[in-house]
Amino acid sequence: MNQAAEQGTLYVISAPSGAGKTSLVAAMLEQDAQLCVSVSHTTRPMRPGEHDGINYHFVSRDDFEAMIGRGDFLEHADVFGNYYGTSQVWVKQTLAGGKDVILEIDWQGAEQVRHLMPDCVSIFIVPPSPEALRKRLNGRGTDASEVVERRLNEAADECSHAVEFEYLVVNDDFDIALDDLLSIVRCHRLRMQAQQLRYSGLLTRLSERR
Amino acid sequence: MNQAAEQGTLYVISAPSGAGKTSLVAAMLEQDAQLCVSVSHTTRPMRPGEHDGINYHFVSRDDFEAMIGRGDFLEHADVFGNYYGTSQVWVKQTLAGGKDVILEIDWQGAEQVRHLMPDCVSIFIVPPSPEALRKRLNGRGTDASEVVERRLNEAADECSHAVEFEYLVVNDDFDIALDDLLSIVRCHRLRMQAQQLRYSGLLTRLSERR
Repeated sequence: MNQAAEQGTLYVISAPSGAGKTSLVAAMLEQDAQLCVSVSHTTRPMRPGEHDGINYHFVSRDDFEAMIGRGDFLEHADVFGNYYGTSQVWVKQTLAGGKDVILEIDWQGAEQVRHLMPDCVSIFIVPPSPEALRKRLNGRGTDASEVVERRLNEAADECSHAVEFEYLVVNDDFDIALDDLLSIVRCHRLRMQAQQLRYSGLLTRLSERR
Repeated sequence: MNQAAEQGTLYVISAPSGAGKTSLVAAMLEQDAQLCVSVSHTTRPMRPGEHDGINYHFVSRDDFEAMIGRGDFLEHADVFGNYYGTSQVWVKQTLAGGKDVILEIDWQGAEQVRHLMPDCVSIFIVPPSPEALRKRLNGRGTDASEVVERRLNEAADECSHAVEFEYLVVNDDFDIALDDLLSIVRCHRLRMQAQQLRYSGLLTRLSERR
């Protein structure tokens, strides 16, 4: 194996709120040490229990805008007055180190990333039914019904872009959806382009006539 | 789910003799009921223990050549005076019925199939080392050493075409190689193109605003 030559794969994972994306990605990271997730930059205030560099990289608006100016972001968005973005430098360095990187972003971010890194693998996760989605969003507890309705409409908008993604995973049974996601990652590691770098010596030796 | 709309995927699997392809494909069929393997046509005589329609479809040279004339074969070859071929009609009907079809053929057959069915998924299996290959070929028993040497050279020829395939699976540990193969199949079933047909109703309902 020639670790130095290996380049990681970028996975863009999107889903409507309530589809279980965050739990699924956490479980993927637990099961696969070669995977890591990108920590976004944001200008929104840190919440209790959050840590800089773990939940987000918390930066000022001035710093964020300077980063935009330098083209530092692979994708960024202004969500209700707060910036969110993915560092292009970190992603590229991590991929160059042979790790696979997951980005948890929305369809608009996915569109930006596809444009800049067309080799990325994009996956959309959906709940098994609109009713399941409503139940999961209600189940979060104390939100007023108009908040739930707004989230359902946002989810509908997000889902209308599902077909722009390369893979669709239906999160009906958590373990099956997790295995689906891990299969996509495993399969992409077996692509000839990647394997050829890992096994170039083996392929040469196997092709030598006696 | 709309079974009628589903179209299976064609998998072309090649490997040098001794890489374990046949055992791996048999194990794939055991674990995945949606997979089936194409039974080739041949003009070589039936051997003791073989059954027509199971090991091969045994046909006469005249019948085989008439089939070639009609363009019935997806791929065919003349190997030491015996014809071998894969029926195009059977493969296409089986795929149209929603089943995934595996073809176990050599690199030359794979090239013909890629030309006629560019959507096929091609996988090459290799042993973990030339030494392992030699050991497996020797282990078959009573073959004279020149027979083993000839097979090793044929294996080298076959392996020199590995890079023309989409995926590379290294059969070092049988169970890992089997899971690799099943991951490729599982991953391909999750492609948006296939999932969109299966889940068109769900995607429509999830995208409806309230």
